Amino acid sequence: MTVDRMLPTAEAHDLLDLTRELCARELAPKAAGFEARGEFPREVVRTVGRSGLLGLPYPEADGGAAQPYEVYLQVLETLAGTWLAIAEAVSVHTLACYPVFAHGSEKLRKLLPDMLGGELLGAYCLSEPQGGSDAASLQTKAGCDGDGRWVVNGTKAWITHGRDADFYNIFARTGGPGARGISCLLADAGTPGLRPQKAEKVMGLRSSAPAQIVFDDCKLDADRLVGAEGIGFTIAMEALDAGRLGIAACAVGLAQAALDYAVGYAREREQFGRAVADFQGVGFLLADMATQISAARALLLSAARLKDAGRPFSTEAAQAKLFATDTAMRVTTDAVQVLGGAGYVSDHPVERWFREAKVLQIVEGTNQIQRLVISRSLVRGV
Amino acid sequence: MTVDRMLPTAEAHDLLDLTRELCARELAPKAAGFEARGEFPREVVRTVGRSGLLGLPYPEADGGAAQPYEVYLQVLETLAGTWLAIAEAVSVHTLACYPVFAHGSEKLRKLLPDMLGGELLGAYCLSEPQGGSDAASLQTKAGCDGDGRWVVNGTKAWITHGRDADFYNIFARTGGPGARGISCLLADAGTPGLRPQKAEKVMGLRSSAPAQIVFDDCKLDADRLVGAEGIGFTIAMEALDAGRLGIAACAVGLAQAALDYAVGYAREREQFGRAVADFQGVGFLLADMATQISAARALLLSAARLKDAGRPFSTEAAQAKLFATDTAMRVTTDAVQVLGGAGYVSDHPVERWFREAKVLQIVEGTNQIQRLVISRSLVRGV
Amino acid sequence: MTVDRMLPTAEAHDLLDLTRELCARELAPKAAGFEARGEFPREVVRTVGRSGLLGLPYPEADGGAAQPYEVYLQVLETLAGTWLAIAEAVSVHTLACYPVFAHGSEKLRKLLPDMLGGELLGAYCLSEPQGGSDAASLQTKAGCDGDGRWVVNGTKAWITHGRDADFYNIFARTGGPGARGISCLLADAGTPGLRPQKAEKVMGLRSSAPAQIVFDDCKLDADRLVGAEGIGFTIAMEALDAGRLGIAACAVGLAQAALDYAVGYAREREQFGRAVADFQGVGFLLADMATQISAARALLLSAARLKDAGRPFSTEAAQAKLFATDTAMRVTTDAVQVLGGAGYVSDHPVERWFREAKVLQIVEGTNQIQRLVISRSLVRGV
Amino acid sequence: MTVDRMLPTAEAHDLLDLTRELCARELAPKAAGFEARGEFPREVVRTVGRSGLLGLPYPEADGGAAQPYEVYLQVLETLAGTWLAIAEAVSVHTLACYPVFAHGSEKLRKLLPDMLGGELLGAYCLSEPQGGSDAASLQTKAGCDGDGRWVVNGTKAWITHGRDADFYNIFARTGGPGARGISCLLADAGTPGLRPQKAEKVMGLRSSAPAQIVFDDCKLDADRLVGAEGIGFTIAMEALDAGRLGIAACAVGLAQAALDYAVGYAREREQFGRAVADFQGVGFLLADMATQISAARALLLSAARLKDAGRPFSTEAAQAKLFATDTAMRVTTDAVQVLGGAGYVSDHPVERWFREAKVLQIVEGTNQIQRLVISRSLVRGV
Repeated sequence: MTVDRMLPTAEAHDLLDLTRELCARELAPKAAGFEARGEFPREVVRTVGRSGLLGLPYPEADGGAAQPYEVYLQVLETLAGTWLAIAEAVSVHTLACYPVFAHGSEKLRKLLPDMLGGELLGAYCLSEPQGGSDAASLQTKAGCDGDGRWVVNGTKAWITHGRDADFYNIFARTGGPGARGISCLLADAGTPGLRPQKAEKVMGLRSSAPAQIVFDDCKLDADRLVGAEGIGFTIAMEALDAGRLGIAACAVGLAQAALDYAVGYAREREQFGRAVADFQGVGFLLADMATQISAARALLLSAARLKDAGRPFSTEAAQAKLFATDTAMRVTTDAVQVLGGAGYVSDHPVERWFREAKVLQIVEGTNQIQRLVISRSLVRGV
Repeated sequence: MTVDRMLPTAEAHDLLDLTRELCARELAPKAAGFEARGEFPREVVRTVGRSGLLGLPYPEADGGAAQPYEVYLQVLETLAGTWLAIAEAVSVHTLACYPVFAHGSEKLRKLLPDMLGGELLGAYCLSEPQGGSDAASLQTKAGCDGDGRWVVNGTKAWITHGRDADFYNIFARTGGPGARGISCLLADAGTPGLRPQKAEKVMGLRSSAPAQIVFDDCKLDADRLVGAEGIGFTIAMEALDAGRLGIAACAVGLAQAALDYAVGYAREREQFGRAVADFQGVGFLLADMATQISAARALLLSAARLKDAGRPFSTEAAQAKLFATDTAMRVTTDAVQVLGGAGYVSDHPVERWFREAKVLQIVEGTNQIQRLVISRSLVRGV
Repeated sequence: MTVDRMLPTAEAHDLLDLTRELCARELAPKAAGFEARGEFPREVVRTVGRSGLLGLPYPEADGGAAQPYEVYLQVLETLAGTWLAIAEAVSVHTLACYPVFAHGSEKLRKLLPDMLGGELLGAYCLSEPQGGSDAASLQTKAGCDGDGRWVVNGTKAWITHGRDADFYNIFARTGGPGARGISCLLADAGTPGLRPQKAEKVMGLRSSAPAQIVFDDCKLDADRLVGAEGIGFTIAMEALDAGRLGIAACAVGLAQAALDYAVGYAREREQFGRAVADFQGVGFLLADMATQISAARALLLSAARLKDAGRPFSTEAAQAKLFATDTAMRVTTDAVQVLGGAGYVSDHPVERWFREAKVLQIVEGTNQIQRLVISRSLVRGV
Repeated sequence: MTVDRMLPTAEAHDLLDLTRELCARELAPKAAGFEARGEFPREVVRTVGRSGLLGLPYPEADGGAAQPYEVYLQVLETLAGTWLAIAEAVSVHTLACYPVFAHGSEKLRKLLPDMLGGELLGAYCLSEPQGGSDAASLQTKAGCDGDGRWVVNGTKAWITHGRDADFYNIFARTGGPGARGISCLLADAGTPGLRPQKAEKVMGLRSSAPAQIVFDDCKLDADRLVGAEGIGFTIAMEALDAGRLGIAACAVGLAQAALDYAVGYAREREQFGRAVADFQGVGFLLADMATQISAARALLLSAARLKDAGRPFSTEAAQAKLFATDTAMRVTTDAVQVLGGAGYVSDHPVERWFREAKVLQIVEGTNQIQRLVISRSLVRGV
């Protein structure tokens, strides 16, 4: 089903047309191969960046495209419908640009054009092996050496672009325990003591497998502090709110692709002398899938418009992330089912999408953490 | 939780403020009593009409308030959060005004100011005892007598305002079998041969119980035909598309009220030395309820904006009706659960809301019919 | 669908036949009337008792019928399929006989024949207004007066048979705070200071509405203590484990009745020229309902066999209560849906069953408490 | 949680002990490796066979172990909890022995000892590329050549053991269209014209990937007909009823393993200073998983006891297959969630179990076909 999108500007329509064209030309022919090989598509990401898609929601003055989140997220959704790893790369990179954009010094902000133009790919180092959900307890430490430099020690985990990024945001403890002892630092790839580990053996999204990063006396100049000391946790949470919208958009795009594929198959496939889609047993299943996706997209865009209007959107982002990723998991599970045995083999992409959907329920705050965010907001009455 | 609404105009904000005030002053104090007595609140409906809420989406030239559906539906939602029967009355009445508005002759359209101003309350006679979902097979007949008048015979069922309406849209067979043999006629209350039966003993929405209408040689002047002969089914379906949005809005309002009440209770109620809401077992349940409601509202308003923009919205209306009413059923069921035993007695309104939610999954096309509409749209690829 | 039951004995078959006959002759003709009037069917309960159904799982030596729980629960299920209030009366009464049976003194046990024979109807006073789920914190106190009598003060809530019982188990605090300060006492109806309050205005199960009991210097002889001082909470929990199986059986019976009714309707009702049941949209819904019910019954009987074999069954009872009552709520909701508008009016019993199902998710430990019991068992690894 | 099993005999206890020991010694150390390599564990299957597990439900006279289905299925469940591919191999092999056992000539039945002893591994060739669910329309043909031999032509699809079996049951059309034109033939591996194709690239169960079998003028002696001509479809359906119980048992075992692993992880893993399992948000999720599994197992064993008692069990088998496999999909999805990121990598087996669970919803009749079977039984009133 072609999605009837109410976009705010003609420019947004052009941007989505451009995205669809890019998907058809550059992404679609390559996705299955890179995923099968587990190879990071650095060149494809560069092409996406040169098309202007790696800095969409940032101001033009900083090298971005000044697009509202409402539009940016629909670009992400479109990318995800063709190749989730690329959409996730855009989402994570956009997240990784946020600290410098919002809190960076004049000097650090000079990096923005290369970041937003896609020459430099970013990573976001928050999670740790022992503290997935409880970020405020992170243990990576950054002390000061005699020369006024930061010395980082510790291990970060599940880092997207961990082996491929050009710059790394590092959230490290510079003070006492708890959220207020955390600061944000910026490191370049290749900095001595910043050691990406081998890629994780992930079930899906294999072309962009995360990795641990070991920091072993990794020294950073004093001016690599992003924002004031002690506000790192605040920066991380601000970025995550927006990042959750990105993951939700990925989920909607993935689910829509799975639905479209299942509908196409069910129209063609005949059993008992009729197209499978004509049996209510399948047709109603497709209807429920479509309805869930429409609701997820509407919820996502509703949250995006709050953000674009400068209103609080943290609870709504958590709801969108929760609902959209649960929808993607359910819809891809059912899409495999509609194909039957054919859905279980790699000849059809639904098999890959099913494996990919699962990770979306986990990243940028598990869906249990989203429920915690939402329930606290309800209890506070905000 | 106060819903943060992105309304399109300042006027819309005023309209919602007015609605909330009306709810607090006129509806809230009376709802429980009328529902307990099963008495139709004709005067309350009149007050609502005089406040301008019975013709919101129609042009000012016809006596309406020229509000977009996006706004009208949020008014409905607000009313439903206080008293579902009143919101449903507004929705059904708005539906009942549609045939004359969109297809009526000049003469019939002269009735619009009284209809839209709320002096005349409307009913919409489509369903029959034998044909709930299969409207195209309806059996009520309208033949012509020697004097050029229509003579209606048959029985209509589940008619909201059946005993209280001032005017009735009647869908009757004037030609051969199937959808094309159906026409729409307009009858006044009190027309001889138009006989409302006793109110149905409904589980909820008791203040506005539906009734059968028996037509027994009910004669109507020739100019009471609404639109051309044979287009009755088309009129009915057009009206239903919009009517489904109305029911979806009622469902969202009802669900939000139930959530708010449950949150309030769970904040106050203590067990094991803590507020019940602080246990994740309850908090996560509330979070899921809130997320479903947000998604339902976003989906509803997304469909409304399509309608307001003049685009096709039939599939989206079916999705909104399906999703919002399933949400209302689930949320009210869980709201009773959050209150425990207290939720099962009439001391708290959640008990009433639970009974009321069920009917929303049935009216204006059961949710099975909505799935049929959606699956057909998917298979056609529209 | 006739349930194919694998009963352990020929006697059990006879007992179920007797029960079915009793249902058809004594219960079915009266259920709707008593429920509509909200009148407790004391005479019907007496008839049921004289048929031997009020002491089924107790030894013959005490006046019971020495039936295993596996059989007793299928009797309950059968009763619930005709009239839930009667099945619940049997279940609550059976629960109320447990303390005297298992812990009572020789003297108290002399009451057993009248209890188990159904001459005396029991109530079980555990819950309080402030402590639904947190029973160990109950506040009703029982002190000793100078004459060695117990003096009970406090308020019990949600007491089934509260206004109609002949004897009351009272769980009261005789010692310090917490579970170990609680004892069990037995009171006769009419004891001065034992004051049943007005019946609660419940949504369903109206013929057996619960009531609060106020204890106002209610004096009981010393020998009215059931078991040792301080073991009241242990007694209460033992009884509840078995009581949960009873509620689960009620839920299975109610759900089966609703399914059978919906299947019957869907076979007869035609739309679009075919029986509604022949559409997969309805047929698959019925299949899911039937499957859930079969699973609930199997789970229930599996737990019963553990109990009958003298093995631990507390976790399994919690699972059976949780699963069976959630099933009953879902199945009755869908049964109303299968009937459409007809399901929403009191002409068909599914409307009543839907209202009744809700209470089963709440009583004898809300389904949240069941999840707590189960999760603790998982974490302990038992 | 150790499952408390009520087994019918001491022998059954011994058999389960043996199975557990076999799992620990032979299966557990090898499962991950074979699955990663996608290599069929022929020797492991042989060891399982020599332990007597490949002919459990068949009479001792034929070389079986004369175990009731109630016991056999719990052996399958135990195997599946360690290595699904082995459990499925046992289930499919047991299915593949059925035609010869129940309908084979004296001569064919002489093969039974080798079949049931595990020397010969069986395959069951029913599905075809164009007719997954609609088996009665199968197109593989078996005509007679001048010498009285059967000549088979056509393609079978999704054949478990397709490349590794020693004997193949072939369902082929020997007569006119429809179910009555189908017969069953038995072929040895290596028969000219019986050509296994390359293994399918499946998402899970990779050590036992199915394959197509092309029959190209494959000639079989006349005495290779199993049962009378034209009863092939009846044989296939009889075998499938029992086969569905086997798949259901696999699903229960897989789900239980996933739950146990998730519980173990949640007990050890700490976040926010407490074991994850102590948060109700996780604990209640585990409780729901455990409850679903208990219900699935109880339903499965209830159906097995019907079969063991010689009663009709076809509907119950469909219910067990539907419920157990939906449970396995849901539970494995949630088990990955409990582990979070750790669940998404192959360091923990839940990632594999999640991929494996999906196929169970598809094989031996998709869950849509199970719903069809159940709904027809409901409508017929059996």
